[in-house]
Amino acid sequence: MIRPIAFEDPELVILDQSLLPGQVVYERCPTAESVAEAICRLKVRGAPLIGVCAAYGVALAMKQYSGPSAGLLDYFYQVKNLLAATRPTAVNLFWALQRMERVVIQNQKQGSRDLARILVDEANRMYREDIETNRAIGEQGQSLLSPASRVMTICNAGALATCGYGTALGVIRSAAQQGKIEMVWACETRPVLQGSRLTVWELMQDQIPVTLITDNMAAHIMSLGKVDAVIVGADRVSANGDTANKIGTYSLAILARYHNLPFYVAAPRSTIDLEIAGGEGIPIEERHDDEVKYIQGHCLSVPEAKVYNPAFDVTPHQLITGIITEKGIVKPPYAGQFISLLKEDE
Amino acid sequence: MIRPIAFEDPELVILDQSLLPGQVVYERCPTAESVAEAICRLKVRGAPLIGVCAAYGVALAMKQYSGPSAGLLDYFYQVKNLLAATRPTAVNLFWALQRMERVVIQNQKQGSRDLARILVDEANRMYREDIETNRAIGEQGQSLLSPASRVMTICNAGALATCGYGTALGVIRSAAQQGKIEMVWACETRPVLQGSRLTVWELMQDQIPVTLITDNMAAHIMSLGKVDAVIVGADRVSANGDTANKIGTYSLAILARYHNLPFYVAAPRSTIDLEIAGGEGIPIEERHDDEVKYIQGHCLSVPEAKVYNPAFDVTPHQLITGIITEKGIVKPPYAGQFISLLKEDE
Repeated sequence: MIRPIAFEDPELVILDQSLLPGQVVYERCPTAESVAEAICRLKVRGAPLIGVCAAYGVALAMKQYSGPSAGLLDYFYQVKNLLAATRPTAVNLFWALQRMERVVIQNQKQGSRDLARILVDEANRMYREDIETNRAIGEQGQSLLSPASRVMTICNAGALATCGYGTALGVIRSAAQQGKIEMVWACETRPVLQGSRLTVWELMQDQIPVTLITDNMAAHIMSLGKVDAVIVGADRVSANGDTANKIGTYSLAILARYHNLPFYVAAPRSTIDLEIAGGEGIPIEERHDDEVKYIQGHCLSVPEAKVYNPAFDVTPHQLITGIITEKGIVKPPYAGQFISLLKEDE
Repeated sequence: MIRPIAFEDPELVILDQSLLPGQVVYERCPTAESVAEAICRLKVRGAPLIGVCAAYGVALAMKQYSGPSAGLLDYFYQVKNLLAATRPTAVNLFWALQRMERVVIQNQKQGSRDLARILVDEANRMYREDIETNRAIGEQGQSLLSPASRVMTICNAGALATCGYGTALGVIRSAAQQGKIEMVWACETRPVLQGSRLTVWELMQDQIPVTLITDNMAAHIMSLGKVDAVIVGADRVSANGDTANKIGTYSLAILARYHNLPFYVAAPRSTIDLEIAGGEGIPIEERHDDEVKYIQGHCLSVPEAKVYNPAFDVTPHQLITGIITEKGIVKPPYAGQFISLLKEDE
């Protein structure tokens, strides 16, 4: 199975996803700063994965702390702020940092060395939990699919977006193990091409049938009767079920509704943000113009062209057929159901 | 004004659009074969333009005919078949070839030399008519737009897709002359990027405000309330108003309907094909996988990936607010209205 990260004390080793699939290069991140940079530059990406990477970043920083114990908490908050500033939309990042913060506060009386060990343990636990969670999401979600399903997806909500197995692709993987997948339609996902670069690569490695399309072909393929369901990941789900995910997701949800196809979101409970009532409150990251204008250094347009480059959009809950979590599939109305879901097993 | 082609006897000079906007290169086509190749390779593209190019291709071939006059008609049909086989979807190609066929039949008793001169005159007439037609489409269409309009478009239905001025961009040009255009949202139009390469370049040359987006951003921008209308070109309109156009057009039409935005098709009457009852009868060209997998020689995915690459889709008439022609704007129901429209001024 693809391993997007591995903690090899005293470093986090990451698979540089910005170079995939042409080059498979692993990079060593020995510091919180190098982890933060890897997140900013999309070397690691995917909401669950950047959460766990940030947790390792905190642990790495604590291993390097040599100041007085009185300064330890201030130091932690500096590191937390650095990592929190990398990307604004995926809530898993903040969820992971808050979880690390609780551990720091609970153990602040320990020396930095012991605390660092405790933080590494916690990050390792998050890593293992993430894979278990994805397997549970996959098992829940595969029940929604019939044999010979043709599933459309966007971006990469796969093993590469998580610590392994994937969320939307976890559902597809579990369904494929049951022999239920006839075809995956992978939208290429401009501008950064996570679909063509990552999802196609990942599914081909697992010998799951996949066909690459450009994003603007989705409606046409639905109209041909060649899609049975759309399954996507999520970067943040607000309390009413509105879901932020990769730009283009909202478009697919509208197209699915028009063609009477089910539209599912697959995400761990850590993606649910009860502090935000509706999608309008989710911050949407805007990224650099060059992502749209250039591919591998080649200009696709006029260099001076004005560009708008939002990295995410929000799909209103009315368009979502169900949200697949590790503890069950939530169907509308979402509001209210998340509170009990988040309490399970706590 | 941009001139995508110019007839410089005995050659058709074309602006090689496959190299735009990075390189502005003109290429000389002295034969029907070289014109056909330029059409196949998308050096010239756009439904009205390939029609006129094919007409010049016929004229060039006739200039080179040196056989017996008894063989002239057979020779013409060989040339016609060569040019007709270049691209299947845009009906303007077949319309232009049929118009040339009528002239050949009417004048077949002339020697090939005189006939060639008559065919050059006819192609020149089609060239001039196309620009006049586009100006009339622009004047008709601009009446639909209010001041400070934000218009979304896909592909390039501009001066570069015609002999000059454009259809959808003709409407935008006419509206801009009235000071009505606040912003044009240009969808980049994967896989061949006619939006980012051609529409952005063309509008910037005319200093019409334009913002480049990837195709999957359209829905998000509509949801922000930043779009007032969608205007697109057409490759073929069937008798009931169903419209084939660049892949992604159907998607925009669904998204426009969801956001209660008007969706207009701008096209000359030569794009209307009364011989096809509905969109399901329009042949849809599928192009090579490499258009999706490679950009400027760089692989964007796994080289062995399976790809689906339809170049067009069909927007059902129910989603079209109006069809803007040089003789007026047709509103639903379309069926029946086209017959009288096509008879005007014949």
